[in-house]
Amino acid sequence: MDNCGEAPGERELEIVPLGCIWTTPDGEGGGMRTGTNLPAIGGYNQAVVLDAIRRAEDGLSRVELAERTGLSAQTIGNVSRRLLDAGLVIETGKIVNGPGKPRTILQLESRGSYAVGVHIDPAVITYVVLDLRGSIVSHSRTRTPSASQPDQVVDLMARSIDHLIDDSGVDRSLVLGVGIASPGPIDADAGIVLDPPMLPRWQDVPLRAALSEATGLPVLLEKDVTAAAVAELWFSSRNGRANFAFVYYGTGFGTGLVINREAVRGASSNAGDAGHITVDAGGRVCICGRRGCVGDLITPRSLVRQAVEAGLLPLPPATEDDLLDLASIVSSLHRLAELAGSGDPAATKILHDAGRHLARAIVVIVNLLDLDEIVFGGPFWEEISGAILEVLPFAVESSEALIPKHGLRFERSAVGEDVAAVGAAVLVLDHAFSPRPSAMLISV
Amino acid sequence: MDNCGEAPGERELEIVPLGCIWTTPDGEGGGMRTGTNLPAIGGYNQAVVLDAIRRAEDGLSRVELAERTGLSAQTIGNVSRRLLDAGLVIETGKIVNGPGKPRTILQLESRGSYAVGVHIDPAVITYVVLDLRGSIVSHSRTRTPSASQPDQVVDLMARSIDHLIDDSGVDRSLVLGVGIASPGPIDADAGIVLDPPMLPRWQDVPLRAALSEATGLPVLLEKDVTAAAVAELWFSSRNGRANFAFVYYGTGFGTGLVINREAVRGASSNAGDAGHITVDAGGRVCICGRRGCVGDLITPRSLVRQAVEAGLLPLPPATEDDLLDLASIVSSLHRLAELAGSGDPAATKILHDAGRHLARAIVVIVNLLDLDEIVFGGPFWEEISGAILEVLPFAVESSEALIPKHGLRFERSAVGEDVAAVGAAVLVLDHAFSPRPSAMLISV
Repeated sequence: MDNCGEAPGERELEIVPLGCIWTTPDGEGGGMRTGTNLPAIGGYNQAVVLDAIRRAEDGLSRVELAERTGLSAQTIGNVSRRLLDAGLVIETGKIVNGPGKPRTILQLESRGSYAVGVHIDPAVITYVVLDLRGSIVSHSRTRTPSASQPDQVVDLMARSIDHLIDDSGVDRSLVLGVGIASPGPIDADAGIVLDPPMLPRWQDVPLRAALSEATGLPVLLEKDVTAAAVAELWFSSRNGRANFAFVYYGTGFGTGLVINREAVRGASSNAGDAGHITVDAGGRVCICGRRGCVGDLITPRSLVRQAVEAGLLPLPPATEDDLLDLASIVSSLHRLAELAGSGDPAATKILHDAGRHLARAIVVIVNLLDLDEIVFGGPFWEEISGAILEVLPFAVESSEALIPKHGLRFERSAVGEDVAAVGAAVLVLDHAFSPRPSAMLISV
Repeated sequence: MDNCGEAPGERELEIVPLGCIWTTPDGEGGGMRTGTNLPAIGGYNQAVVLDAIRRAEDGLSRVELAERTGLSAQTIGNVSRRLLDAGLVIETGKIVNGPGKPRTILQLESRGSYAVGVHIDPAVITYVVLDLRGSIVSHSRTRTPSASQPDQVVDLMARSIDHLIDDSGVDRSLVLGVGIASPGPIDADAGIVLDPPMLPRWQDVPLRAALSEATGLPVLLEKDVTAAAVAELWFSSRNGRANFAFVYYGTGFGTGLVINREAVRGASSNAGDAGHITVDAGGRVCICGRRGCVGDLITPRSLVRQAVEAGLLPLPPATEDDLLDLASIVSSLHRLAELAGSGDPAATKILHDAGRHLARAIVVIVNLLDLDEIVFGGPFWEEISGAILEVLPFAVESSEALIPKHGLRFERSAVGEDVAAVGAAVLVLDHAFSPRPSAMLISV
């Protein structure tokens, strides 16, 4: 918190330094809230106005802004002026509505600021550049080098980021920073990736510092599933998602959680691990020593293993790490899904079982948090979604164990395959612009 | 939200009407935050000052208040004056500290306002009257009438509340309202208890309206485990609890959840059901059709059943509902705990197994939400806590399935046996006085 400084002032646009975003002033000792004052709320109101403009596809007039935000015409006028001066907002024409003066429309200046998002999956690293509205300006993807040391990976990532910014034609000085979505567990305060289970050489890698040094940009580190949930929250705002789990299906399986429109991070920013929920009492023994953990049963690796054991697929080659080779798992998973799609009963059974296992885990999570929506995504979700969704919604809703009485929505990601990388970039934008009431509080 | 009106004004002390507390202005559609302004923050700052005074056992001077809240001396002066005028705060002497003017100490006027809390457990109904500081002024407890219709229970509760207020000597006009902690599921918006599993005659009981009519007081309905978590949050503020589960052990088992210092309610205020987490693949079949659900295995009823099956205890009498009689379960559980306490190996095994089952459920919850503290309580917790805690902390911390790397704290309730009733009363006080940033937002 020490480097976070004072809350943004009333008279200027200030971007809060990265690294402070998810810390609230009452983060240490006592649990006492601090008060608020005009300078503290000035920055908040500015973020509210910017957010309202961002969410309105066709822009908003100052009158509409006043209506939507509840702020006075004078405050809207002052804030708009500052946003225009800072180049974050532009005036894009007038509308005539009734007898009064035509109203000038304010829209976000998409090209006012940019953010880079990086998602490290054990199989692929995805890079995106987002503009201020959250549109993807450019995008690239590389296979995660399986035999490299972390410092080589950092060099590779820094080069990839540089190339992506160059290729996008974006003025580098307008890039606010880099967000990284990494498999957990992470040490969010220190910016360190601790020891993600499927990245065996990544032990205590100080990724935030290393990548910041290598790129010269501020860097923010977030757990992958949390970044994905943040992206869904940002892009699905119009349908009012407030309490949902984002089921992330990549090389691993995780669940980003959103409660009351806030991403759940928990005590050390490592929330979202649902892998050890027991879903099949007779299942395989997991690394935790128990049988039938959902994270062990439904990952691409496990589904491919089941298909090999059922004689549906040939055994993929093993790597030197004694793990099944990730690239061949991807193609094997694709083949398994094809078989199920063509009606093969054994392939269908493997995926339907996975759907029922995932359903049981979802029941546990919904009961615990009273969620009303489950959003599915991640790099490998589309492969299996058809077969899974043939059984999953019914298995959840007909479960005798399901407690909440309200309906549940099962949706696919509003963002798509790059959701975690987009989420990491959104965090950088969000950090700078998003209104959170806790940002109103005075730092003492 | 319609009855919530405008945010509290700058110039007067206003108590927000009950029923609005947990609704944020952005609760419907769009997810857009509204802005804030001076009247909206006036009420917030007042609540911040009141909260700071409440948390300081020996009161605070205006200078200390300014330091702790970050508010200006002038704002503190204005707010203090209003709180003194409203009779919520009193001046209690002066301290001399250095060469300056002696400082006047402000303390909460405990007798300025009161709240009633009611907790409906299938076995007992607990009533408390709390003063403004959260001290229990009076307290009563009745066995939950097992054969009554809900309307008879409402009459009984209304009479008990009247008697308790009379006996406490509290001026009825100073009672802000009644909070009810009820087993779920509830319909929080409508104030209805839906169909709690261990209260078979309670189906769609409009408890909030019925009890409000019968007592003439505003009534607020909350799920039991959420109320308990709120009480822990209020009373444990000095040790900085921020991300914890409150394991509630009563006739049933539930978990109140607090994330980032806010109680988790979820989409329909029914969060906190952890009962169907599978913890013993070879265990008994639960009503959900699966084996080994923690809520089925560790309740008092289940432990007593296990003790009867092991020949440790005689079979308790069954009631007409074909449920084991709750009163005899309480005494049987007591006997089981005594046997374990005196070293009986079979009794000890039953409770140690329960501890390990609960440990597995806690690992699942901690992984999902990245909690760093587990708080235990509820009416029957003290009976079994000794034996459970001999095995539980080690079983959690040594689990191969535990993801977060930080330490965990295992604590007993800071509130004690009445925690859910106290929490229900705290919700009423909290509702009126507690600073939440979302309360700063303008209602549009």
